[in-house]
Amino acid sequence: MFLNNAIASYFFEGYLPKLFAFDLPSPLLATAEAENAPIVLSSVLLSLVVIYLASKIGSEIAKRLDFPPVLGELVAGVLVGISALHLIIFPDSGLLVSDSLIMSGIQLLNHLSPEVLSQVFASQSEVISVIAELGVIVLLFEIGLESNLRDLKEVGIQAVVAACVGVAVPFAAGTVGLMMIFHVAAIPAIFAGAALTATSIGITSKVLSELGRLKSTEGQIIVGAAVIDDVLGIIVLAVVASLAKTGEIDVLNVVYLIVSATAFLVGAILLGGFFNKSFTAIVSKLETRGNIVIPAFIFAFFMAFIGNAIHLEAILGAFAAGLVLDESDARNELDELIKPIADLIVPVFFVTVGARADLTVLNPANPDNRAGLLIAIFLVLVAIAGKLVTGWAVFGIPNINRVAIGVGMIPRGEVGLVFAGIGSASGVLSKPLEVSIIIMVILTTFLAPPFLRLAFGQTKDS
Amino acid sequence: MFLNNAIASYFFEGYLPKLFAFDLPSPLLATAEAENAPIVLSSVLLSLVVIYLASKIGSEIAKRLDFPPVLGELVAGVLVGISALHLIIFPDSGLLVSDSLIMSGIQLLNHLSPEVLSQVFASQSEVISVIAELGVIVLLFEIGLESNLRDLKEVGIQAVVAACVGVAVPFAAGTVGLMMIFHVAAIPAIFAGAALTATSIGITSKVLSELGRLKSTEGQIIVGAAVIDDVLGIIVLAVVASLAKTGEIDVLNVVYLIVSATAFLVGAILLGGFFNKSFTAIVSKLETRGNIVIPAFIFAFFMAFIGNAIHLEAILGAFAAGLVLDESDARNELDELIKPIADLIVPVFFVTVGARADLTVLNPANPDNRAGLLIAIFLVLVAIAGKLVTGWAVFGIPNINRVAIGVGMIPRGEVGLVFAGIGSASGVLSKPLEVSIIIMVILTTFLAPPFLRLAFGQTKDS
Repeated sequence: MFLNNAIASYFFEGYLPKLFAFDLPSPLLATAEAENAPIVLSSVLLSLVVIYLASKIGSEIAKRLDFPPVLGELVAGVLVGISALHLIIFPDSGLLVSDSLIMSGIQLLNHLSPEVLSQVFASQSEVISVIAELGVIVLLFEIGLESNLRDLKEVGIQAVVAACVGVAVPFAAGTVGLMMIFHVAAIPAIFAGAALTATSIGITSKVLSELGRLKSTEGQIIVGAAVIDDVLGIIVLAVVASLAKTGEIDVLNVVYLIVSATAFLVGAILLGGFFNKSFTAIVSKLETRGNIVIPAFIFAFFMAFIGNAIHLEAILGAFAAGLVLDESDARNELDELIKPIADLIVPVFFVTVGARADLTVLNPANPDNRAGLLIAIFLVLVAIAGKLVTGWAVFGIPNINRVAIGVGMIPRGEVGLVFAGIGSASGVLSKPLEVSIIIMVILTTFLAPPFLRLAFGQTKDS
Repeated sequence: MFLNNAIASYFFEGYLPKLFAFDLPSPLLATAEAENAPIVLSSVLLSLVVIYLASKIGSEIAKRLDFPPVLGELVAGVLVGISALHLIIFPDSGLLVSDSLIMSGIQLLNHLSPEVLSQVFASQSEVISVIAELGVIVLLFEIGLESNLRDLKEVGIQAVVAACVGVAVPFAAGTVGLMMIFHVAAIPAIFAGAALTATSIGITSKVLSELGRLKSTEGQIIVGAAVIDDVLGIIVLAVVASLAKTGEIDVLNVVYLIVSATAFLVGAILLGGFFNKSFTAIVSKLETRGNIVIPAFIFAFFMAFIGNAIHLEAILGAFAAGLVLDESDARNELDELIKPIADLIVPVFFVTVGARADLTVLNPANPDNRAGLLIAIFLVLVAIAGKLVTGWAVFGIPNINRVAIGVGMIPRGEVGLVFAGIGSASGVLSKPLEVSIIIMVILTTFLAPPFLRLAFGQTKDS
């Protein structure tokens, strides 16, 4: 066993148990590494097999029930995740390595010590998490490629208005309501209100794309607003968290975030013409395999890196890269080539989002959950109503589907969960308030796809 | 900065600094995680950008110089790796985080403490290593898809003969030569001799594919022999390492390895017909995106997992999966869909193989290297001659290119480096002997592609 593990370890020479991360490499370390590396690979492979099986079974059942496939992927993720089957779980959820069915299987095969098994579990979780993150980057890149920049420019002002209304209304209603009705203190109330602001662009875009509505006026306003909204959400989070931590707002940081986010997107769009010509010129000169795919991903990953490096979001950079390359001549070919790549990596994101959602906080049988449930019901109502009104803020476009725009901005997804996580880590949020935010995120994420389908369905019938 | 880091950290909830791997999750940990996670993503993105730039520049230059593109990817990998630019380096090479240019850039952007930077470096290296490993799995899956099972069956006996000769001759010549000429003790000599046995299927297959010779009789014999050879190499490594460790050969383990490897490949091939019908039936019923790609990768990753789980190699399982699906009806569509995926992930493998190669051990100006250089020259000659003779062991096929078969089996690549690593870790190999094995691996890997081109070029001209 040792010997064969060692063979595969060649590929893993980068792996060092983190316990020894500050020591110099030594033969002993090389041996530990040699024993762990193929087991990490085994557990990553097994996790991917489970994720792919879940995503395909979930999406096919959802399709047959006439739901968007992405909803099936999320539900399948919940089923294999921390709430049910414990196949795909993560150390930070509070579950131990012994709770993981995949790790138990790995343990049966390899008879590892508890310490080594914990290391393998942590490494596997880290790799799956990064692959999921690359998945959402590829998803936003693909969505950028599918979004037409000129269409987006046309709905630009509408998107800005929808985004501002969709941030301001739930923020104000949530904060005031929590303080007035539930007598929550000001800072936690502001924090929870802020958690209601940012739309999850990933889920909405996927559903819009599946409904064939991504390029509709409504779709473009939703995506545009969700992008602006995401940036506004980050700014709100920055302001609120610094308020919660220091008691004062860090004005310089707020100004920096606003300026850099605006400069980044506008800059990418303005420089788009130049990038396109260079990209087309380079692609036409390449003669080896991957002549389109590799330059496209160099650009996408570089923009994602820049997005991260200037302390915005990586997905914002990937989306900008997609918008820019959508204008290039190689566009149609790139659209075809990116599909199998997205098909392979994007489900990892959606299944792990589902797998991380802890539905046990919804159980009313547990008395600890009841306080949160009442606040949760309030937050869910504010979250839905606060975004629904955005549709009526859109002006100057006759016969537009206002319900669809509002519904499209309901899912909070990733960003909302981050608010809950930071609030919990910094001690600002009480347990019921934290649980309420999680419930709000789960429900808005799960309800938005069927609601969005219904909202667009109404248009078809009327 | 903290706040935005926290946003991205949602995707990374699986990330826990390994220093705390045995502790329960706590808010403090969540904060550490929230701060590190987007930096790990940044460094992974930047590493991928560098790897893709290197692979494309290298392959395009190689193509223009009439070398196989994969040689360009390897050389570009060496240039960005531990031997030159220090962009893609790994903690286990003995280099520190401060030697990594990418980490220095990340440090400039984020002002991390040395401890956090070391953690990020280790995490980034681990993720890139797993992606590279997934890359070689996808490569072998694609090669399996491109190999025709019936053709491979036709050359089956020839491949077995070539593999056995190609393992026995270098093993015997290397061991005896080291003992007689260089007065090396028996066990290290046997170990070094064993390091000469296993062919690197990845590089040879890629070159053959680029030359359009993968489906020629020679190509099929080489690939078949390299697969058998790889299995034989693992068995030899198992035997030799247990000899070196315990002074006696573990007969049960040897028997287990031989039986399981044979059963695995033969079983996969025999059950191929059944798998194919199921695969085609499932694919035809799926209606959502990824209907071919996801089932194909479920099968490939599952077979790779099985290959790893029964203590053979993951790439053996992926290759078997490719062989099986090559017979299915969805084959042509799958061939097209897998190309962009392979284009994106396989270069990570080849560039990191180059990046890990430490060419400084070749520098004769350093007196420490001289003892190794003489032994290295001997090992390189045995490595080349020992595989060249395999061509003449092939019988019953008239007008076959015997030189090409011999040359095709020269590269030792990954497996050879693992011998050096294990020998060094277990203390069996002296430093000069270890360095010699590394030099042998580097030279055979780098020389084989142009030699193989020449060997096939001769056929064309004559």
